[in-house]
This record gives sequence, structure tokens and C-alpha cells, in this order.
Amino acid sequence: MTMQRKKVSVIGSGFTGATTAFLLAQKELADVVIVDIPEMENPTKGKALDMLEASPVQGFDANIIGTSNYEDTKDSDIVIITAGIARKPGMSRDDLVQTNQKVMESVTEQIVKYAPNAIILVLTNPVDAMTYTAFKKSGFPKERVIGQSGVLDTARFRTFVAQELNLSVKDVQGFVLGGHGDEMVPLIRYSSAGGVPLADLIPADRMEEIIERTRKGGAEIVNLLGNGSAYYAPSAALVEMAEAILKDQKRVLPSIAYLEGEYGLNDLYLGVPTVLGASGIEKVIELDLTEEEQAALNKSADAVRSVMNILS
Amino acid sequence: MTMQRKKVSVIGSGFTGATTAFLLAQKELADVVIVDIPEMENPTKGKALDMLEASPVQGFDANIIGTSNYEDTKDSDIVIITAGIARKPGMSRDDLVQTNQKVMESVTEQIVKYAPNAIILVLTNPVDAMTYTAFKKSGFPKERVIGQSGVLDTARFRTFVAQELNLSVKDVQGFVLGGHGDEMVPLIRYSSAGGVPLADLIPADRMEEIIERTRKGGAEIVNLLGNGSAYYAPSAALVEMAEAILKDQKRVLPSIAYLEGEYGLNDLYLGVPTVLGASGIEKVIELDLTEEEQAALNKSADAVRSVMNILS
Amino acid sequence: MTMQRKKVSVIGSGFTGATTAFLLAQKELADVVIVDIPEMENPTKGKALDMLEASPVQGFDANIIGTSNYEDTKDSDIVIITAGIARKPGMSRDDLVQTNQKVMESVTEQIVKYAPNAIILVLTNPVDAMTYTAFKKSGFPKERVIGQSGVLDTARFRTFVAQELNLSVKDVQGFVLGGHGDEMVPLIRYSSAGGVPLADLIPADRMEEIIERTRKGGAEIVNLLGNGSAYYAPSAALVEMAEAILKDQKRVLPSIAYLEGEYGLNDLYLGVPTVLGASGIEKVIELDLTEEEQAALNKSADAVRSVMNILS
Amino acid sequence: MTMQRKKVSVIGSGFTGATTAFLLAQKELADVVIVDIPEMENPTKGKALDMLEASPVQGFDANIIGTSNYEDTKDSDIVIITAGIARKPGMSRDDLVQTNQKVMESVTEQIVKYAPNAIILVLTNPVDAMTYTAFKKSGFPKERVIGQSGVLDTARFRTFVAQELNLSVKDVQGFVLGGHGDEMVPLIRYSSAGGVPLADLIPADRMEEIIERTRKGGAEIVNLLGNGSAYYAPSAALVEMAEAILKDQKRVLPSIAYLEGEYGLNDLYLGVPTVLGASGIEKVIELDLTEEEQAALNKSADAVRSVMNILS
Repeated sequence: MTMQRKKVSVIGSGFTGATTAFLLAQKELADVVIVDIPEMENPTKGKALDMLEASPVQGFDANIIGTSNYEDTKDSDIVIITAGIARKPGMSRDDLVQTNQKVMESVTEQIVKYAPNAIILVLTNPVDAMTYTAFKKSGFPKERVIGQSGVLDTARFRTFVAQELNLSVKDVQGFVLGGHGDEMVPLIRYSSAGGVPLADLIPADRMEEIIERTRKGGAEIVNLLGNGSAYYAPSAALVEMAEAILKDQKRVLPSIAYLEGEYGLNDLYLGVPTVLGASGIEKVIELDLTEEEQAALNKSADAVRSVMNILS
Repeated sequence: MTMQRKKVSVIGSGFTGATTAFLLAQKELADVVIVDIPEMENPTKGKALDMLEASPVQGFDANIIGTSNYEDTKDSDIVIITAGIARKPGMSRDDLVQTNQKVMESVTEQIVKYAPNAIILVLTNPVDAMTYTAFKKSGFPKERVIGQSGVLDTARFRTFVAQELNLSVKDVQGFVLGGHGDEMVPLIRYSSAGGVPLADLIPADRMEEIIERTRKGGAEIVNLLGNGSAYYAPSAALVEMAEAILKDQKRVLPSIAYLEGEYGLNDLYLGVPTVLGASGIEKVIELDLTEEEQAALNKSADAVRSVMNILS
Repeated sequence: MTMQRKKVSVIGSGFTGATTAFLLAQKELADVVIVDIPEMENPTKGKALDMLEASPVQGFDANIIGTSNYEDTKDSDIVIITAGIARKPGMSRDDLVQTNQKVMESVTEQIVKYAPNAIILVLTNPVDAMTYTAFKKSGFPKERVIGQSGVLDTARFRTFVAQELNLSVKDVQGFVLGGHGDEMVPLIRYSSAGGVPLADLIPADRMEEIIERTRKGGAEIVNLLGNGSAYYAPSAALVEMAEAILKDQKRVLPSIAYLEGEYGLNDLYLGVPTVLGASGIEKVIELDLTEEEQAALNKSADAVRSVMNILS
Repeated sequence: MTMQRKKVSVIGSGFTGATTAFLLAQKELADVVIVDIPEMENPTKGKALDMLEASPVQGFDANIIGTSNYEDTKDSDIVIITAGIARKPGMSRDDLVQTNQKVMESVTEQIVKYAPNAIILVLTNPVDAMTYTAFKKSGFPKERVIGQSGVLDTARFRTFVAQELNLSVKDVQGFVLGGHGDEMVPLIRYSSAGGVPLADLIPADRMEEIIERTRKGGAEIVNLLGNGSAYYAPSAALVEMAEAILKDQKRVLPSIAYLEGEYGLNDLYLGVPTVLGASGIEKVIELDLTEEEQAALNKSADAVRSVMNILS
């Protein structure tokens, strides 16, 4: 019976987890289970109930529950992991990585137990290494463990370009490879507005500024907020990936995918163009990179490996 | 030229203000200006930018800005006021009322200055008295100053009934009069599921529990969250009212409206069924109430007046 | 794996079949197969291709094909039957019934062969008898064979009431029982605008005119068109029912359902309020009818039986 | 007051006109007036009423009327012209052009009279010459008289490419210049899937076949239908252009625009990339064409001129 409601579990009830849950339900993509630790159970329930109470007005039918019990995630089609800590002042990168690694491992264990056929989508930072952690811990086939970074980086890039040119965001395309943020490898020759390559529309130095702003896009929001980090755009990115999978859309979206030789890289998770459908990552699209682009991608891969080396 | 983008300003960048802004933009109802005090300018800008960065992925064209400068609200079609403080432990009701009254007066002054043709939608609590304050301070015609409570109360009621009967929220209708929450006057005889009166579907004592849960619906969320109050459903309610106005939909929605004789009440703002369209409240719908219902409404009006008496 | 695309087959590529296919695809509810007889294969393919070519612009991902080969309907989740002839001048009712009965039987045979787990939705007229035919011929459990009439009758009623009162169609509810059109049994006491019973809003004689116009709603369109019959509203009605099933929404919608004692009626298909979800008709809602209403329903049932008696 | 409903008039109640009206209303973009000749008044009214009766089910608020009286188009924001005859067997091209020229002139006269501030969107074939006719007859500024062909050609191209690569239509971009269909000048270097240039994904000879199929895309549908021509995709194209204008979206879409020196061409209407917003064509985007591309565009312009020469 294919008509039963789909089910997505979102691990972490912070701003990103909650917003992701809401956007999923709003599109009637699935029933949603938001999971957090027992100490956060009540607030998680409160957010879920508040969202549910918006449903008659927003006109969507989807159940949304908050819980600290992983049994409630049973047979999820997708599990989205947003849990983890953010780097705090004075915290070393190693501490961050190892703390979040423990979170990932503990969450993944539960997923394996309760939703062994799920597709895992990871947002937790540092996302390339954390996706790798979920992959190793779960033992799932590589196409079912996916990280998010490129959809968000591209969304920011598209926003800035649309503003620059005073055009609809619908008509601006961007393209990135590699790691998240600073490690991003933008492919400007594959970026366009209304199909017209950006190089024909924006002077090179101005383009460089836009790329730089995109790289620092997460930090720009962190600095403005003063307390906390971006969650609207990251949630929208997760939901676009989940929608592509839930509806088997064969979307071409950048994903953090496990590489086994593609782009000359092996045994790591890195951002590459992929086709997302019902099976998860159905294809990694390989491009002929210029020497310069390949060098930048290798550098991005090195950065990811240096984080992976911290994993215990 | 009717094709220029509409403009909605949202006063207050807290959870409700921000969520309202996002939902407005997501539906491409208007460009959105989020306003907060100068101390909050950066976080407000950060939220606005984060939302904007979600637009390429969510597929909407709407500008969203954060500001502390009311000049940016110039010529808004609608101004939604979510600003104000929540009651804190130890704070007297009088303190709450008078503090928020000052907020309302200061905000309204700016609206009169910069958006003299706007329609004002008020969420700030205690909402009946605060809407009255905005009305008096603005000098706007009564149809252009409107408060929100009934759409939210009804949404909660509909959610609980849909859960009770395991039916789509789309098919459950509710109906309330009077003040918000505790002061709500539910009209069960006008409430239905799929057109069938609820009295035929839910036993009276169970219905009473659902009504009671609805009355306390705000407190239920407050208690669960531990820190803060509901914002998804309140935002959805504001957006539904704004949409009815922006699209001139002639929706029949409960609004906090200024009464001049309707229901035997005068010179106060109270929740009644209204028709919302391009002019704001285009009609107050008068019903033949039973004696009991009228008594409950009068009691609700008394409660509102007792708050109005605190206004300085 | 629940993430595979759903599949709906639409039998009949006329205006109603085609519009139904388009509206299904537009909502990304399923991939769609439009089936017609071999003589109509090319036009059917042409319509399907034209729709598909609208998909990049309308922004939906759904495959749509035209075919005369029932193999293409394999494993459909829902099959919607719009095929059949319309009554022509000089044609006796018996001829109409028996011709369409043959169409239904032949189509149903193919459904049983290729999509034995499908839910069947019938629009072909006379719809009560044709739904009965599909039920008998298929041997499917009653909850999986459903006819459409009440959603359409209600939609027309709601449209006329919304115009009468100058209100949003979103806020007008209607309620009908019994057969289609002339045989319709309107329950005005369950009909409302913004929750307010229509009897409080529209004088009785004017209401009678609106009901009469609703009864003759199909003929009004036929007379205006001069050639052919309504298809936008009928298609929208079919799609709402299909959506309720495909998304397991537990919608309360009027369906033509097989009765086994409900409302004191047995072994016939007649319009009653139902709950539609993943299993098809998940519940028939029984109401306490007044004597007058029950008499009207019995009369409606008699009319249906008189058509059933023509079935060969 | 910007909140009044927008108004779009659609001239011609054939399949394309009707479908365009429905798609506009469905998106709540405007109230819609469908206009046809007096002999077609009743069918036009019938289609409009049928659409309106779909509105409660599809959940949109928009008025739709059918008429033969141009007074009803008063103050339209946009007028979309789909009226005109199709070429019949044995009819010379000159006859077609001159017959439709008369239609255009007569329609344009009415627009000038009743909706002097409207933006005119033309679909009637041969569309380049007919848009020119509307421009000359109306005396409107060039940015307010626009023809449709490139959105449709691109939609067909995107559909074929998405099928070829088994990817979402959402991720395929195409780019055309010049006249409609046969005269189309595809810019493959500006066409991509998921940002990746199509030349990297599809072999040159296969690409040539897809382009050829796109050129003949209208004829493919005509041949399949046997009687009549495409209307779903053309309507969707018109609605996308209208939406860009009505919502001031600054979309980058190919339009048939009046050229005054752009691309070295003068005093003719031809397909070029444009920015569509509240003022109509807000910008013609000029590209650096290769010699080959410019030659193809010149040839396309010549073909348009040869049709313009037939205009009386």
C-alpha cells in the first residue's frame, strides 16, 4: 500500500530542527516526529503542538509530534539530523568535532535500531565529517547517508546575485562543489541569471565579493543575530532535499556524498552535484573540472580530511 | 498602478513577528519590513536576511528587510503589531497593561506618521485593550484597526476536534465570540465537522473538556515551552487575516472589532464574526444569540472593560 | 518502500478526463496515465504531451502519458472512470444506461486484471448505477469502489451562496445527500457561511431558488455550452476525492457509497457523508435525519433503484 | 489603494483562452474576464461558470466571467489576446495573416478604449507580426505590448531534455531567441541541467534531434490531436508571463519585444531575453552572440519581416 502517510523524523528541536519540521508539514510531505533529549521533551512537545495548531489555518494535514523516545521514529522514511552543539568561544575545534561525533553516533545507533530503511540527511557541523560518521556508524549503503551544504551555499549565492541584478531569485542559478562555507568551490561558469552566464552580467571583482560574502554567509548571520545561527535557509535546504527524495523527483542538487573515485577522491564525504530520488543519492554527476577547479576541490577535500582526522 | 508589490510591516522581531514575516513572504503576499527597537536592529536584520536566503529554495519572490527605522515602513498597506512584553512572574496585570499601552502608543504614532492609509492588525496582549489603544491613538476609522484572537482560538479548537475524531483539520469548523482564551465564548451550535454539528459527534462532557483545553491553549504551550509562548499558530492566524485583506477575499473570520451597538455593546473592541476585505473589517456579522450566549458575551465584555480601565 | 511515485489512471480522455489528469499532475499527487479507446490513442497522447510540456512552467514533476493499452495502468493506486457517452437527443434513458454499463464493465475488467489493488472512483453517468456496476463487476470490497456527485453538487451550491452573500467561497459550507442533481437532498441546516447557518443569512424563498439552481447546475452549463457538459468543477471534485485518498487525509466528503443498512437502505450506491482516507471510504457517517429528510432520501434511493433496474 | 483585486481580460474563449483564464484564477492572480464574439457569448459564460464552480474545491477566490461586451474589460491590468483563427487546409499564409490582423486590430481598438493602461500579451499567430500589429494599433509604449513564444518553446525543450536525462523538469534550463517554432534560435551554450551545460550531458547529434523536436513541437501536438492545437503549455506560458508582471517579479523570461537597435535589429517584434515586471518589459537583455548565432537571429528576423510585409 503506497498511500500511507510518509514519515520524517527530525533529530534536534532547536530553531533549525523546528523550522524544518514545520516546513515539511506545511507541504504535506510527511508526518513529522521531532526528537530531542529527555530534558528538552516538554519544549519539543510544545513546539510540535504549536505547529499542529497552525495547520487548520495554513491548511495542511500532517501529524507533528515532539518526543524524546526514539521508538516514535519507528519506520521513518527519512531521518534528518540537526542535533549537536555549536562552537562556543574558547572551545577548540577538536572538542567540537568530538562532542558532535558522540551525538551523531548515539543518534545513528537509534536510527539503525528503529528505522533501518531510512535515508539519513545530516546538517550537524562540521557536516562533511559528521555525515561520514553517520555513514560508518550506520553501515547503511552510501546512497542513504547524505549531508547538506551546497543547497544552502547556493541559496545564499543566488540571493546575493538576485539582489545585485534586481532580478527574481527564481531565475538565478548557482553551482558549488566541495566543503561548506569557507571550503566552498564555486563554479561561476555554471552559474547564470535567466540562463545568461554571470560572467557576462557581473564584473569579475564584484563577483569575487559576492563569492566571498557567500563563503562567509553563515558567519554574517551569526554576527547579526549575536546569539545563535541561521535556521530559515538551512531548514529550507533540508526540506528541498527531503522533498526530492520523498517525491522521487530526480532533482539535481548538490549533496555531501560519499566518494569512491569520483573527482579522483576516495573514502570521504564531500559536496558534489547529485541526483536525488527515492533511493537517496541516485547518481553523482561528474564534471570535467579545470585544473584550477580540481586544485580547489582537492584543497577542500584536504580540509575535510583534516577534520576527519580528529574523529576518535 | 495596481501592480506594484504590496508592503506589510511587522512590528516586533520576536518569534511571532519573525514567523509572521516569513509566512507572509512565503506566500508572496507582500514585501515585508520587520521593525524592532535600535538595540535589536542587528538580530532583526539577521533574521530578515536568513529568511531572504530561504527564498530561492522555497521559490518565493518577496523582499524582506529588518530595521529599527520607521521610515522603512513608509506607505505600508498593513502594519502588524506583535511588539510588547509578556507578563513575567511578579509583574502585576496593571504593569503589563500600562507597559504595553506605551509600546502601542509609540508604535501607532509612527504608523500614523509613515503609513497613514495602512490597516493595523494587533496581536499584542491584552489584545482587546491594545487594539482599542491603537484605534484611539491612530484616529483611524474603526474598520482599519483590527485585533487577532478568534482565528487562533478557533484554530486550536479545530485541531483538538480533528484529533478527537481522527479527521482532517480542513473539515472541522469552530466558532468563537468574545475575548481571547479564558474569556472566549465558544458557539458550539455553529461548530461542525464535515458540516455535521459537533454536538452530534462528541459527547457533551468530552466537548466541555475540549473547550476548556482551547481556553487554556495559550497556557498549555507556555507551560510546555517553559520559556516563551506560542508563535506558529498565532503567526498563521495573523497571516490569514492579512491575506484576506491583501487579496480582498471577503473572508468570514472572527476579528476583534470596534463595536458601536452591535450585540448591545458600545465603545469597546471585542471578538465578533466579521467580513475581511480590502477595506479591513467590511462588516460585523450580528447573530441572534441565546440568552446564555449573550450573558457569556456580556461577561467577556466586562472582562475587557476591566482591562481597559487600567489604561492610563 | 513508500517513496515511489503514486500512480493514478484516468479512463476517458475527454474534457473531464483530461482536466482531471492535469489537476492531479499539477498537484504532484501522482504520475498519471490517461486511457482511451484505440481510435482516440493519438489525441490522448497529444493531450498528455501538451500537459507534460506545461510542467516546467507550472513547476510540477509528474509523468503523464496517453495510451489505449491497459497494461500501462498496471498497479495504479487509483483508477478514475470518466468514460462513457452522454445522452443524445432521441436517445432513451435505457439506451444510455445500458451503453454506459457496457463501458463500465469492460473498463472494470481491465482494472481487475491490471490494478487489482486500486481504488475505483466513478464519474460516468448515471453515476449511482455505474458505481454499482463497477462494484459488482470488480468484486472489490465496497470501500474501494466510490462514486462522485456530492462534492460537485456542494461546490455549485457553495459558489451560488458565496455570490449571493458576496463572501469568499472558502467560508461557505454546503451539505447534500442522495443522488446527483435532481435527486439531490440538500441539508440546509448543515450548511453555513463562516459557521453561521444559512437560514440566518438567506431568506427561505431565495434559498429555495439557490437549491433549485444547484439541482439544475449541470443542465445550466450544458445549455450555455450548447455542445458538451461541465468539466472544470467535476474534475476538481474528482481530484479532491483522489487527494484525500492518496494523502490519507481523513477528509469528510460526500461520496456515493455502497449502503448496507445505513440510513435504512440496502444494496445500492447512494450519496452519503463519508470519511475518505488511504483505504478509500473509511467510514459512512450516519446522521439523524428528520422525517422529511429521510423521505427525500428514500425518494432519491427509489430513483437510483429505478435506474438500477435497467441494468442488464 | 493597492489592495483591490487585479483584473486580467482574456480575449478568446477557445481552449487556450479558457485554460489561461482558469490557471490565472487558480493562482488567485486576478479576477478574470473572458471575452469572445457575441455568437460565442453563451459558451463563454458556460466555461466561466464551470470554472467558478471549481473554486470552492480548488480553494481559490477569484471572480471569472464570460462576456461579449468589452465594457466588462474596463480598467484591466493585463489583456491577453488568444483570439484569431488557425490555418486551415487550403488557406494561404497571406489569408491567415490578414484575417488575424483584422482580429488584432479590432480587439486592440477595444483595449485602447476600455483599458488604456493595460499591458497587452499576445499569443495569436503569427505571433511576432500580430504583436507588432497590436503595438501599432494601440499606440501603447513598447514595454506594454508583449508577445509570447519563447517561454513555450523553452518549456518544450526542457520537457524533452528532462525526459532524455530522467531528471526533474525543475532543474533543466533552456534558452531561445528569435521567432516561434521553426524560426527559433536555440542557445545551447546557455542551456543546462542542474547548472551543467547540456553539451556535457547530451551528445551533439542527439541534442540536434531534441532541438528539431522542439522546433516542431507545435506541429507534433497538432498531428496527434488531429483536430486543434496545443493549449495546456501555451496557457501555462502566458500565465507565467502575466504572473511576473502582476507580482512585479523581475523574472528573466524570453518575450517577443519591440527592438530598436538591440541585436542590430530595428522596428520589429522578435523573441529576446527580457526582464518582466510591473511595467511590462522592463529590460531587453543583450547578449554577445557568436557570428553563427547572430546569423540565425538575422534569418529569424527576416522570416518575421516577410510576414510583416503581408500586413495590409
